[in-house]
Amino acid sequence: MSKPTKSVPVAGSVVAPRGFRAAGVFCDIKRLGTGKGSDKGAKPDLALIVSDVPAAVAGMFTTNQVCAAPVKLCVPRVRTGTAQAVVVNSGNANACTGPQGFRDAQIMARETARRCGLEEGAVLVGSTGRIGVPLPMPNIRRGIGMAAAGLGSTPAHADQAAEAILTSDTRAKQVAREFSLGGRPVRLGGICKGAGMIQPGMSANGSRPAAGSGGLHATMLAFLTCDAAVVPPLLQAMLAEAVARSFNRITVDGDMSTNDTVLLLANGLAGNPVLRLNSRQPERRRDREVLQEALNGVCLELAKMIVRDGEGISRVVTVRVSGARTDAEAELAARAVGNSALVKTSWHGGDPNWGRIMDALGYSAARVEEGRVDIAYSAPGQRARLFSLKQGRPTRTSFETLCAAVAPTEFELHINLNLGRGRTVLYAADLTEAYVDFNKGNVNDPASLGG
Amino acid sequence: MSKPTKSVPVAGSVVAPRGFRAAGVFCDIKRLGTGKGSDKGAKPDLALIVSDVPAAVAGMFTTNQVCAAPVKLCVPRVRTGTAQAVVVNSGNANACTGPQGFRDAQIMARETARRCGLEEGAVLVGSTGRIGVPLPMPNIRRGIGMAAAGLGSTPAHADQAAEAILTSDTRAKQVAREFSLGGRPVRLGGICKGAGMIQPGMSANGSRPAAGSGGLHATMLAFLTCDAAVVPPLLQAMLAEAVARSFNRITVDGDMSTNDTVLLLANGLAGNPVLRLNSRQPERRRDREVLQEALNGVCLELAKMIVRDGEGISRVVTVRVSGARTDAEAELAARAVGNSALVKTSWHGGDPNWGRIMDALGYSAARVEEGRVDIAYSAPGQRARLFSLKQGRPTRTSFETLCAAVAPTEFELHINLNLGRGRTVLYAADLTEAYVDFNKGNVNDPASLGG
Repeated sequence: MSKPTKSVPVAGSVVAPRGFRAAGVFCDIKRLGTGKGSDKGAKPDLALIVSDVPAAVAGMFTTNQVCAAPVKLCVPRVRTGTAQAVVVNSGNANACTGPQGFRDAQIMARETARRCGLEEGAVLVGSTGRIGVPLPMPNIRRGIGMAAAGLGSTPAHADQAAEAILTSDTRAKQVAREFSLGGRPVRLGGICKGAGMIQPGMSANGSRPAAGSGGLHATMLAFLTCDAAVVPPLLQAMLAEAVARSFNRITVDGDMSTNDTVLLLANGLAGNPVLRLNSRQPERRRDREVLQEALNGVCLELAKMIVRDGEGISRVVTVRVSGARTDAEAELAARAVGNSALVKTSWHGGDPNWGRIMDALGYSAARVEEGRVDIAYSAPGQRARLFSLKQGRPTRTSFETLCAAVAPTEFELHINLNLGRGRTVLYAADLTEAYVDFNKGNVNDPASLGG
Repeated sequence: MSKPTKSVPVAGSVVAPRGFRAAGVFCDIKRLGTGKGSDKGAKPDLALIVSDVPAAVAGMFTTNQVCAAPVKLCVPRVRTGTAQAVVVNSGNANACTGPQGFRDAQIMARETARRCGLEEGAVLVGSTGRIGVPLPMPNIRRGIGMAAAGLGSTPAHADQAAEAILTSDTRAKQVAREFSLGGRPVRLGGICKGAGMIQPGMSANGSRPAAGSGGLHATMLAFLTCDAAVVPPLLQAMLAEAVARSFNRITVDGDMSTNDTVLLLANGLAGNPVLRLNSRQPERRRDREVLQEALNGVCLELAKMIVRDGEGISRVVTVRVSGARTDAEAELAARAVGNSALVKTSWHGGDPNWGRIMDALGYSAARVEEGRVDIAYSAPGQRARLFSLKQGRPTRTSFETLCAAVAPTEFELHINLNLGRGRTVLYAADLTEAYVDFNKGNVNDPASLGG
């Protein structure tokens, strides 16, 4: 079989695919009370993405038992398989807000439907920000009105939407790619946000995977658009696979949010032959492979942007574990290392401290035998590895050489447990004074206190 | 039944009980190469505790799969039920040091036995410090010689031993209490160290408890001496209970060390009627209750000293979880909260951020229902509680009042899940810039890099 055609980057993120429009507006959700004059320079805080026609939809949601109202609203709506718009606010998570919170999420959808001329059930909702504070509904309503009036399909519109969903992020996160399905050009675009409370562990319905498969896991939100024609169950399966390889493989601080959400709308306007779950035609199977590869790529690119822009981080470390007894044990080992306060502070200090890595492996729930563990470093994507430990014994590599390996802002850590064929990868980050300073907030300025 | 007689504090920690002598000396284990002149002011780094007669022994050890050589040496020796001395070095953990490390631990014991005129098997060994560096055996031998020559039973001797076991601790940790067993005055004393890599989860043989019972868990070392007469199996059972209620209930940074060790020697020189496992005499059962209470009290006092002196910490928070479906689930909930980077930074900031607490509860492996959770604060040991959340809903307590509740350097956090009778307590700490700064170390000064 020939290799699937590669996708190429294009501009416009969520409005790159045919038939999608977007907007991002400022409606003062944090109620900072900025005067109208200064509002023009304020970061937008409400985003709207609309498809010209009803689209197939797929979603992945936090498995946190304390999940936000917009998640509760979206899970059943995604299950219908069809949607046409997504409205998202930052500055307020609408989490732990009780029945009123759920009604407010419904009102967001209803107001969007009314303004855009859609069915209420075709509107999905996302929120991110402080937990436990009711949404400022007058501001939300005003924002939805402005956004609906301002929808457009230029890259500037996508930029505004990408800005609107940010919280503690320092920059917008967008990507879009074009590829070919059945001879037709197809586009897939996405925007996302992250920064803190980041260790997503999402599933299709918010229910938890089996114990031991990595249950532990900021608000991260990602919204993807595509003009391919795909039936909803296949779209859901494809998104689940892409999320398992991307957003569910990142950690900034080990805290899984109440709001983590990934939504994908595919409106079919590319006119490709419809992709179905059980299609056996070689051409369609190949199309499916091409789309999956593009989806995996776009999700991974967005997920890595979240880690690179994690709160206060100074280094991104790709933790690759191999040789575990099972993939699930590789996962437990990788998360023990990637979430260890002592390992993370050593990364911040540029200290190739393999003792802390061994310690974290040893207390993980994965089987580890001290005398078998290999630990090595490489530059991102490079084959050449520098070993600090082989079969549990320090190599002759000098301390200075190891320091040089962990000095770059991005490097890969390879851990081989040499016990089996289980493997995984985790995109992790260091722990810095800046993270602590940011998250301790300022009690004299309650608005600074994150959710 | 009348309440057991209370114990009273006495001076001298590990030398308070009859027949125990101690010493702490500087032998430059970190090989800082301090000249002989300046050595006089250096912190001691090797401790020796010796009983005049063979003692019953009990021990609890890290359940980290990567466990240090001294742990491997001690587990079978403790199982014999008898010991007479403990030799401990700081500055080097003798962990991940392979077969040579184990031989070095044996040599430490042998050298101590030779210098003190004991059986080699009657000597136990402890180490704490950097992982993966071979012990400097000439220094260790010299240290053991000096310590054996300097043994004594004054409080100053105990002070030196307590200083010698410290690493990043800012102060020595000692306690001793006197009580009465069968009409005879009995004493129980202890020293300990902690600071970082602190979330012990110890068992009698280093093997793990059943999954779900809190498997996740700095080097903490504690050495206890007692002059009561107790048979070894009962002593082990009593130490296991005391550790489960104290050292295994603390967390500083969530990292369980390779070296966590608690040892208890009871030499019988108090002359009380021997306490046995199955004694049914009411007097002996009451003696056992008195000793257990004293042991629980001494261990808890030492354990809390470790949290209060945790690396860089500014606040100590007692997390009390009740109303979980089971005690094991209460434990999972408490550890999710007590180890959450976002909850810990909010404590540092004096921010009563119940949203982050709810988030951590929600991603814990304990069953949690958002609409049932109560969250409250109290001063340590006080009954009066200030609720921030009742049945999942914010109370009318003002933000300023809640800030005042979390402003003291110690407070209690009460979480009631209202789902059952499961309960636990966890002694936790905040996460500060100082912790990060200390643990990132200085790669230009490899000796600063912790193990």
